[in-house]
Amino acid sequence: MVFPKTEYLARVHAAQQAMAQHGFGALWISTEAEFRYFTGYMTKFWESPCRPWYLVIPASGLPIAVIPGIGAALMAKTIVQDIRTWAAPDPVDDGVSLLADCLTEVANGAPIATPSGQQSLIRMPLNDLTALQRKIAPLRLVDDAGIVRSLRMVKSTAEIEKIRTICGVAGRAFDRVGEIAAPGVSLRRVFGGFQSLCLQEGADWVPYLAGGAGAGGYDDVISPADDTPLAAGDVLMLDTGAMRDGYFCDYDRNFAIGHASDQVKDGYKLLIEATAAGADALRDGVRACDVFAAMHRVLARMGDESGVGRMGHGLGLQLTEWPSLNASDETPLRAGMVMTLEPSLTLPGGGVLVHEDNYAITTSGADKLSPDAAPELPIIG
Amino acid sequence: MVFPKTEYLARVHAAQQAMAQHGFGALWISTEAEFRYFTGYMTKFWESPCRPWYLVIPASGLPIAVIPGIGAALMAKTIVQDIRTWAAPDPVDDGVSLLADCLTEVANGAPIATPSGQQSLIRMPLNDLTALQRKIAPLRLVDDAGIVRSLRMVKSTAEIEKIRTICGVAGRAFDRVGEIAAPGVSLRRVFGGFQSLCLQEGADWVPYLAGGAGAGGYDDVISPADDTPLAAGDVLMLDTGAMRDGYFCDYDRNFAIGHASDQVKDGYKLLIEATAAGADALRDGVRACDVFAAMHRVLARMGDESGVGRMGHGLGLQLTEWPSLNASDETPLRAGMVMTLEPSLTLPGGGVLVHEDNYAITTSGADKLSPDAAPELPIIG
Repeated sequence: MVFPKTEYLARVHAAQQAMAQHGFGALWISTEAEFRYFTGYMTKFWESPCRPWYLVIPASGLPIAVIPGIGAALMAKTIVQDIRTWAAPDPVDDGVSLLADCLTEVANGAPIATPSGQQSLIRMPLNDLTALQRKIAPLRLVDDAGIVRSLRMVKSTAEIEKIRTICGVAGRAFDRVGEIAAPGVSLRRVFGGFQSLCLQEGADWVPYLAGGAGAGGYDDVISPADDTPLAAGDVLMLDTGAMRDGYFCDYDRNFAIGHASDQVKDGYKLLIEATAAGADALRDGVRACDVFAAMHRVLARMGDESGVGRMGHGLGLQLTEWPSLNASDETPLRAGMVMTLEPSLTLPGGGVLVHEDNYAITTSGADKLSPDAAPELPIIG
Repeated sequence: MVFPKTEYLARVHAAQQAMAQHGFGALWISTEAEFRYFTGYMTKFWESPCRPWYLVIPASGLPIAVIPGIGAALMAKTIVQDIRTWAAPDPVDDGVSLLADCLTEVANGAPIATPSGQQSLIRMPLNDLTALQRKIAPLRLVDDAGIVRSLRMVKSTAEIEKIRTICGVAGRAFDRVGEIAAPGVSLRRVFGGFQSLCLQEGADWVPYLAGGAGAGGYDDVISPADDTPLAAGDVLMLDTGAMRDGYFCDYDRNFAIGHASDQVKDGYKLLIEATAAGADALRDGVRACDVFAAMHRVLARMGDESGVGRMGHGLGLQLTEWPSLNASDETPLRAGMVMTLEPSLTLPGGGVLVHEDNYAITTSGADKLSPDAAPELPIIG
């Protein structure tokens, strides 16, 4: 476990207080981030789709794990003491009866809540979900009323320090991009090289890396890296979601390969300015749309924002979390939320520029977790 | 796209032939591996839970994408021409109505199939799934009768060559483990160093790395790496799921740090022998349980297999795929399947040893995709 047991116990207790308000008999969890949030259970076995993992939080007391036997010894090191296992994968009954029995036992006739809203999923085959609903009847599976989202959105000091640490790891990797990027080197090799730098600087994993390169900005930020070589005059962007101790950073840096046009340099400065405006707006009580508007006002001076539709989001156990910073989201931001600010700009020639930084919201403003970016587009290669 | 368009068109056509046999009006896909399988669409944006991606395969003709607008330009480079987008994330209707309309339009009154069996999931919030089912009524969402699983299990020659390539990448990284592992180096640093070696040798990503170290075998193969330093006399195991061009390898190698006990050396040789016995049994038409039994017979000479319950599985677009090699699975193996053989052994002191290799099944036997392992436990450090 990454934190002392008291941290996990406090999270479970907070969930149980909210459950009581809604009259839920149990909270059912099937996803990795939520498992880690409530128990500290961490394994790469989530990468394999062949083993489901289930957690049942009763109205009071410790969570119960319903998991493949292979995970029992590791689970016993967490706060969970009641561990019920089966030999997964079982083609006939892959833990469904065991889970249904557990839910029925603890729910005491009340509805069973599970995260069902945006950015959630049920990590269970649909056939098994249907079977589960039949087995627990007349108990019903209901939306958790945003309990898990509300809890996860506001980070503890310990969580914020974990995010600060991985932001620092990525920052040291960004400082070394000149070692791996130069004219003639393919973006594919730059991607590999940058992941390697993150690992050398202390990342446990690099689950996410996006980027792009082009003379007048990049084409898009979603394509995989290809074998096209970098050329002098390109602006290179690398956007990393590296992890350490189960927490993500998510920010980018831009670099001119040798040189860049005035348009790109000016665009970069505008993005830095827009990010600063967003950071100034970022404080306890402000609405998500107000932070969006603060960045948008700066970007509007040069042309248009890129049309991605949001300019930031929550960050923590996952690369992207709630809330989203967009024009219409009136969610009030709260102290303890960790946010990315991610203004983007489409240049007149159609190329895109993006800048991104990470912040924790405090009662008095924003605490910058990612290192300071260069005020002017840095030149490498 | 990683393959020529004809490869994807053939996959879609094969799905449509099977759909016709079952009377399905459409096949609905919501998951990354299936998107890549049918369209070649590849992006790291799947790492973010905030954007759903949907694909609809009609009874005939090309697939239709129902996706966030940010993915439209990249999707247009695939075989998909009909691309319907929305501005995700949309807190009110996150693509659900658009998807329901598309499914209703193409299904022509027939049931809509989606993968619902083992190792599948619906990548959509439960609230949205419920809304979708309501919107498409009276059309029903039904299990795809294993169509996608059956197709994906049998690989094309082009797919097998991709898996061979990434096996080679990992093999070159394993050859260099002596550069990163020595007494006093923590397993955490070894994990980082090994991922870095994989990237240097040509991996695009290293989504999975498990391992362990100990004098009499390792404790388990599921825990994250910690700061415990390697010691002379440890046996170190690294098990990697590296990716290139969207395909995984999944195999491990063991190393003695300086020296190892005779028991560990003998255990290693037995695992190599068990793997060879499994490979001898691996051919078109044999049952999964027969391959398990061939390995189990060898392991039984020294003591017991580890109780993990399976000794191999399918491999390809995902780290673990169907089928599983266990004692009871009578699935007939077929030429074109790519399998891991993964015998494991619990030594008398309680430590575990695992060996793993990757094979493609041919009409005449097994084609080894991972490089040959050392016949005796290699010594490094």
